[in-house]
Amino acid sequence: MNSISQENILVGEIANGLPLTIPVYRLKGDGTGPHVYIQANMHGAEVQGNAVIYQLLEQLKQLDLKADFTLVPYANPIGCNQKSGEFTLGRFDPITGTNWNRMYLDATSIIPEFVRNHLTSDASTIKHAFREQLITHIDQKLNGPAYQLTTGQRIAYNLQRLAHQADIVLDLHTGPISSKHLYCPTYAKPSARFFNIEHVLLIDNGFGGALDEASFCPWWDLSDALKAQGINFDIAVDAFTVELGSQEKIDLTAAKYDAQSILSYLTHKEAFNNSHHQPAKIARYSCHLNDYIAYYSPLGGMVEYLAPLGGHIKAGTPIANILRMERYLSEAPLHQLTFDKDAIAILHFASASVNQGTELYKFFTNYSAL
Amino acid sequence: MNSISQENILVGEIANGLPLTIPVYRLKGDGTGPHVYIQANMHGAEVQGNAVIYQLLEQLKQLDLKADFTLVPYANPIGCNQKSGEFTLGRFDPITGTNWNRMYLDATSIIPEFVRNHLTSDASTIKHAFREQLITHIDQKLNGPAYQLTTGQRIAYNLQRLAHQADIVLDLHTGPISSKHLYCPTYAKPSARFFNIEHVLLIDNGFGGALDEASFCPWWDLSDALKAQGINFDIAVDAFTVELGSQEKIDLTAAKYDAQSILSYLTHKEAFNNSHHQPAKIARYSCHLNDYIAYYSPLGGMVEYLAPLGGHIKAGTPIANILRMERYLSEAPLHQLTFDKDAIAILHFASASVNQGTELYKFFTNYSAL
Amino acid sequence: MNSISQENILVGEIANGLPLTIPVYRLKGDGTGPHVYIQANMHGAEVQGNAVIYQLLEQLKQLDLKADFTLVPYANPIGCNQKSGEFTLGRFDPITGTNWNRMYLDATSIIPEFVRNHLTSDASTIKHAFREQLITHIDQKLNGPAYQLTTGQRIAYNLQRLAHQADIVLDLHTGPISSKHLYCPTYAKPSARFFNIEHVLLIDNGFGGALDEASFCPWWDLSDALKAQGINFDIAVDAFTVELGSQEKIDLTAAKYDAQSILSYLTHKEAFNNSHHQPAKIARYSCHLNDYIAYYSPLGGMVEYLAPLGGHIKAGTPIANILRMERYLSEAPLHQLTFDKDAIAILHFASASVNQGTELYKFFTNYSAL
Amino acid sequence: MNSISQENILVGEIANGLPLTIPVYRLKGDGTGPHVYIQANMHGAEVQGNAVIYQLLEQLKQLDLKADFTLVPYANPIGCNQKSGEFTLGRFDPITGTNWNRMYLDATSIIPEFVRNHLTSDASTIKHAFREQLITHIDQKLNGPAYQLTTGQRIAYNLQRLAHQADIVLDLHTGPISSKHLYCPTYAKPSARFFNIEHVLLIDNGFGGALDEASFCPWWDLSDALKAQGINFDIAVDAFTVELGSQEKIDLTAAKYDAQSILSYLTHKEAFNNSHHQPAKIARYSCHLNDYIAYYSPLGGMVEYLAPLGGHIKAGTPIANILRMERYLSEAPLHQLTFDKDAIAILHFASASVNQGTELYKFFTNYSAL
Repeated sequence: MNSISQENILVGEIANGLPLTIPVYRLKGDGTGPHVYIQANMHGAEVQGNAVIYQLLEQLKQLDLKADFTLVPYANPIGCNQKSGEFTLGRFDPITGTNWNRMYLDATSIIPEFVRNHLTSDASTIKHAFREQLITHIDQKLNGPAYQLTTGQRIAYNLQRLAHQADIVLDLHTGPISSKHLYCPTYAKPSARFFNIEHVLLIDNGFGGALDEASFCPWWDLSDALKAQGINFDIAVDAFTVELGSQEKIDLTAAKYDAQSILSYLTHKEAFNNSHHQPAKIARYSCHLNDYIAYYSPLGGMVEYLAPLGGHIKAGTPIANILRMERYLSEAPLHQLTFDKDAIAILHFASASVNQGTELYKFFTNYSAL
Repeated sequence: MNSISQENILVGEIANGLPLTIPVYRLKGDGTGPHVYIQANMHGAEVQGNAVIYQLLEQLKQLDLKADFTLVPYANPIGCNQKSGEFTLGRFDPITGTNWNRMYLDATSIIPEFVRNHLTSDASTIKHAFREQLITHIDQKLNGPAYQLTTGQRIAYNLQRLAHQADIVLDLHTGPISSKHLYCPTYAKPSARFFNIEHVLLIDNGFGGALDEASFCPWWDLSDALKAQGINFDIAVDAFTVELGSQEKIDLTAAKYDAQSILSYLTHKEAFNNSHHQPAKIARYSCHLNDYIAYYSPLGGMVEYLAPLGGHIKAGTPIANILRMERYLSEAPLHQLTFDKDAIAILHFASASVNQGTELYKFFTNYSAL
Repeated sequence: MNSISQENILVGEIANGLPLTIPVYRLKGDGTGPHVYIQANMHGAEVQGNAVIYQLLEQLKQLDLKADFTLVPYANPIGCNQKSGEFTLGRFDPITGTNWNRMYLDATSIIPEFVRNHLTSDASTIKHAFREQLITHIDQKLNGPAYQLTTGQRIAYNLQRLAHQADIVLDLHTGPISSKHLYCPTYAKPSARFFNIEHVLLIDNGFGGALDEASFCPWWDLSDALKAQGINFDIAVDAFTVELGSQEKIDLTAAKYDAQSILSYLTHKEAFNNSHHQPAKIARYSCHLNDYIAYYSPLGGMVEYLAPLGGHIKAGTPIANILRMERYLSEAPLHQLTFDKDAIAILHFASASVNQGTELYKFFTNYSAL
Repeated sequence: MNSISQENILVGEIANGLPLTIPVYRLKGDGTGPHVYIQANMHGAEVQGNAVIYQLLEQLKQLDLKADFTLVPYANPIGCNQKSGEFTLGRFDPITGTNWNRMYLDATSIIPEFVRNHLTSDASTIKHAFREQLITHIDQKLNGPAYQLTTGQRIAYNLQRLAHQADIVLDLHTGPISSKHLYCPTYAKPSARFFNIEHVLLIDNGFGGALDEASFCPWWDLSDALKAQGINFDIAVDAFTVELGSQEKIDLTAAKYDAQSILSYLTHKEAFNNSHHQPAKIARYSCHLNDYIAYYSPLGGMVEYLAPLGGHIKAGTPIANILRMERYLSEAPLHQLTFDKDAIAILHFASASVNQGTELYKFFTNYSAL
């Protein structure tokens, strides 16, 4: 049995002065594998990742570990506990509206000087020095004048500080009502086949504030900047956002399956000795982020969702009925919606009540088999 | 084809001065049947009743009507449009917290004088005069000083004014995540068999502010008060709260089934000529409201719900797992919950995240076959 | 310097498993005075009471105490931290809508048996035994099956358990935008003059779920029940809800003034040796709760409040302008509101945007000098 | 008396199918002045602009108009009516968290081709053609596939379509608790002196999604792009965000003063014949946006705000007390906050309860007399 340690990190204080803490679990490997960082529940309603971390811990304590592990459930102690009616209003800071997963720190600014200082370094030196730089950069913000940090930044930077120490970063999310899908940087596409996830979104190098981007963009930028100097340096970090299915649900059986999916990927990344975790034999599809289309409701009304999640939809087939009962006599009360492209329905809105312009669906278009 | 008329009644104004209106649909029968009032969506997230009214209208326009019908979808124009995150926060007035279905007017006060004035009247006179009194009582409030009415009362009283004109009142609701069930006054128990609803809650004469109570309590009180004077007077109104299943969902197929269930009941109440709608052959169970037990979470945590809705649960069998990932090392991370009584699980909370004390389940106990 | 002790009591757990605690401060007197219980901030936005407790502690540590003191700031660790936009949404449980100050336990049921058992007891025995009974009654609920307690009850009962140990209970609240006022049971009217509070609401014996009522109603009921048996027993507990002014504000200077007001009342109640705290010489007005009139907005719109808080308003004088800019051409854009009674404006709504039926003002009517 | 016309534009539909409309008021001048567009209340709680539009209309109908006017109160029919507790939660879309004033359309993309096509046009032709292009660009979005527009974009683009027709655009906002201030593009600095607003924020050419930027950036970009081609073209549009003071307040007297401030500016812009409106003689200060510093709370707690709004604060003087009553014994319960720069306090947070990291204040630093 591997030993697991727990630390509770302090990430803020609330109005009655009580501390906001996040539990951090750690397992040590034999020193020959990568460092793996996995967090869950940055968005308050997206709880299933906690169950996946539970199932991972149950497995990891029995495996022969090469890798070190840092696992962080309940990554957002505000979002996680923010109720509004029965549901959890945890997607954005309730005070400011800022998405909790858009507050990580951009490290772009540190690259030019770093490159100038490492034109003659070897890859291993670069890797260690850059990691140290990333952590220092975060520390400067965390240790700078306290009045310069927002609530969300304080949470995000503390987590990012942990993530920067890892070679592999998995941020466990869910959609609203959703099939499984994976946000994967294009360079890591070959690794995507090792997850048991049917739908893979390929994303370019662009920082929008999310943890996966905060983890891989600096290394990708570094690789590009060194290449511009004629130096070949492979991107040293894999980072993914793993969308586990629907929010507001705990399913321990599904969590076990998803833990095995992660163990399969980590086996591929040589995190274990003697692991037999293999990817499932499933059809996988990839789609570029530019072809991931949001479909906003063209009408206000009550929605019957018709497109099966993960289902391949032909252009022009019905995807939803919109019921508008206050127009029963004045116009047709039922409007059938279609989408004008062949698509895979990945997720839909969590409620049946929508305004005109509410995001109804997100679709893979121009997808191909992976 | 029967003709349907629409009226939009004014029930309030919002901050930018725009009117709050509710659509009211009416069909006229041949004058020999009861007057039927059906409303839906008083709680904003409980939208499926609108779909049932849609399916009812589709049927009613083709049936041979004895009864008059008043159908009111979107009964609450504030609750229906109150979003908080993706979900609809429509169970209570967002300003005051008052449950929208606890604001109807109590008519108890009019009974003593009415009885004194009708000690020698016949049943038909009593029925007509009391109905008129109920409507007058509401009108006095609606036409009294404008500063004496809350937002919710204005909506509720306008609806109650319509309901008081009917002999049969159905208020279509849903639970959070729920099986179908029916709130039925004990005197109407024989009628409950004509709905296709497995679970029937029997309620006594007690006014708590809901529409079903506001509709039947005055007639029940009147019947009791007349009986105390030695006069036999049957309770002249049937009123039910029909819980259609889960909130935040539109399912037109299920709505058609539930419309047929209502048509079966209304056939029994002689609302139609030549209707062949019959109740489905299903097992039905009844439970007294006093035996309808709320089970509040004994722990804060993330919930995996295990009890199947409508399922018959043996005392002591697991009903939920509570995951507490911040106690992975310090205590067991998974707590199995049980209930100490044999029960039918009727509904559970809509979210997987609960505080200690959040209502997890509601159970029928001491139930019997109906 | 008197010594102050602190205990943090556990009143619940939130979704990420973290404990909800409330700080309790205690000071011991010389054993010859009453036991005083003061809490603040049960409603999340009503924070000024915390500052009053701060100022009280600053004073109490220097006074010569006869009384024992229990002081509880931050009485509601959920409400206190519940943000929705910039403001604190702490008046009701965000899940259920239940007002946090309507969840205390009703002790009515214990009285008949208690009276039967104490028909021959002396007053001191009755007082001690009844206090013990009240605490036992609460303990039975707190120690009963965990699944029977709501989140709010768990908080309320834990506080009530502390309050029942006291002879004097002060629950510090604020209005929305408000002048100071005091909820005072009619029997304690003579004591009301010792607070520096201009406006006093006299309330009868009726339990609605609030802490003041939960504290005095059982003793009042007991006194009445004993009187019915021919036994004279003075109501042994004083309990008040103290409305300190407006919510969402901390003002340490005002808090010091209000602490002195409380010290003046407590001096009158012989809580100190050698205290010179005297009530301020101000005009005081009392009004019976039945004459405390809510004025709901007769129109939806934007409100300019005109009635000065604490101001004596003549019937028919303007109390507000309602601006309705979408009717600039179709009708007058500005509506002047009046109230049809002479009144003192005690509080008004916290926002300028109101629906038709939003509570605009609360007025003392039929008031008299105290 | 000038005639005023009203049109209600349709900008969306809500869940019960009812239309979202915005009232638009228009006055025609003699054709020799600029076209002026003024809107208010895009953020739901920032209502005072509606009162300013009211006072403007009262004046404009009596003035001798050169300019045409388009005035839009209640610009956001969702935000304006979104209550959460007593306050208005109208700063962001309650579903997505997106700030309502960050959804306007970026026109940058149309500039390169436009410049290529107008290298030989005269200034007047350029102005007219570019305005037409801007409107066409918006129309393409509004008339494109309905499923491509979010709720907020539909509102914003409809307003922007009106604003693009104007030479002068004023977007009336307020701060939380705030002194008056003006967001002014640097090129329009001389005009800032004609408003009766003490504090002026100078902003560069950068599009972040707000209406003022959406109005001036395209013209500024165009001017720059033409200059790069050696063509001199003055920026043809003035656009300002006018921050009128505090949210959640209607004050008709203050509104009249602010209407006069706008009339003074518009007199300067030759909107009237024979207008005598002159700017007030007040001290004005300007500060570059980069020097406008947000001060986030270094602690969670209850805040007593000490810095007077509009007050000139010396570095190191107290700006707030943070009360932390759960640490009364374990550390000092009162923490005094200071800011390390000389500053003018422009606004502070609307509530006394703050998390660590909540924005407490915004300060002008490095300001100078205007």
